[in-house]
Amino acid sequence: MQIAFVLYPGITALDLIGPYEVLRSLPGAEVRFVSNERGPVTADSEVLTLMSTHSYAETPRPDILLVPGSATNSMGILEDKELIDWVVEAHRTTTWTTSVCSGALVLAKAGILNGLPATTHWMVQEGLRHFGAEPRPDERIVRSGRIVTAAGVSAGIDLGLWLVGEIAGRERAEATQLIIEYDPRPPYDTGHVSKASDATIEGARAVFLDMAGIHD
Amino acid sequence: MQIAFVLYPGITALDLIGPYEVLRSLPGAEVRFVSNERGPVTADSEVLTLMSTHSYAETPRPDILLVPGSATNSMGILEDKELIDWVVEAHRTTTWTTSVCSGALVLAKAGILNGLPATTHWMVQEGLRHFGAEPRPDERIVRSGRIVTAAGVSAGIDLGLWLVGEIAGRERAEATQLIIEYDPRPPYDTGHVSKASDATIEGARAVFLDMAGIHD
Repeated sequence: MQIAFVLYPGITALDLIGPYEVLRSLPGAEVRFVSNERGPVTADSEVLTLMSTHSYAETPRPDILLVPGSATNSMGILEDKELIDWVVEAHRTTTWTTSVCSGALVLAKAGILNGLPATTHWMVQEGLRHFGAEPRPDERIVRSGRIVTAAGVSAGIDLGLWLVGEIAGRERAEATQLIIEYDPRPPYDTGHVSKASDATIEGARAVFLDMAGIHD
Repeated sequence: MQIAFVLYPGITALDLIGPYEVLRSLPGAEVRFVSNERGPVTADSEVLTLMSTHSYAETPRPDILLVPGSATNSMGILEDKELIDWVVEAHRTTTWTTSVCSGALVLAKAGILNGLPATTHWMVQEGLRHFGAEPRPDERIVRSGRIVTAAGVSAGIDLGLWLVGEIAGRERAEATQLIIEYDPRPPYDTGHVSKASDATIEGARAVFLDMAGIHD
């Protein structure tokens, strides 16, 4: 089972590493980090660099495809014709086509989410609508057939566990959850916009703009 | 504020990337990935490679030090005298010295946890006792003064948010939680040994041994 984690400049690393850590222990998993060409790819922090193991061209038929999001490049990447074309082609034969965070916009741009319910990071839900998908901002993961989209950043861990359950059964997924000791106890409870105050939402937007290098 | 994320061969990537994604947006944060020397370092999957940005020698006085764990090298790394010596020295002047998962054993080997309560991955709690620390297997994060240890793998996200609260205040931590949309909804509930059946615990050990390349 070949799992292709897409790696493009500006990715949010946790979008990718959350599901990677969950899925990599699947029986028979062959993990790949794929990009335009093999080599170093720098994340949206501009400090972290990860190595791509294969090009898109070398990976025409992954069984699982996962597209992460970005804090700095989620719109720019939509203009990467090579990525979009590869997603269109690879999707024809995947068992699962998935995204985390603003990675859903890549699937949407590729025409895969047309008329389908999907989710993404809370800040870009309207981007889904722009590309013809139906935002489900209250869902953590949204399944439409063999397409599964997850909400922002950390939601990729939940997506990964859900996929392990579908692919290898509940017992394996429960064991995997225990291996990564995923017994979340966040010290605060503001992880969804419905739980956050207006001040927290405004604060999050300000921090985000700062992270993205956008200043008023 | 200089944050040094330790990168050694065989690390469990999520141990590192969870808290990195949370802490990197701290005001004034200077993130570094540190190792024996600058260059590529391969994680315990043997597929994922991350780039170290600085050597230990180039990073004598980090403000925050974080040591991740490993599925394949958590014992081997204890023999890395350069790492252990650096942790001993760097700890003298840190504001926070922290670990995720079996990274706590590195702190313990460095003598930093002597007689102190601490936690680590559920499979290696006894390792803490071996090095003179007092295991707290039911805690998600354990603080002793300026030392904070987290449980296995995914617990680094909770550690990161807790630290943001201590360093930059509750409002900033709440905004950060919303940015990474950390509103966990695991599809199963077996993330702690106290919640897992004997069969799940046995299954987790088997998967873990397979991941670590250890076969009966």
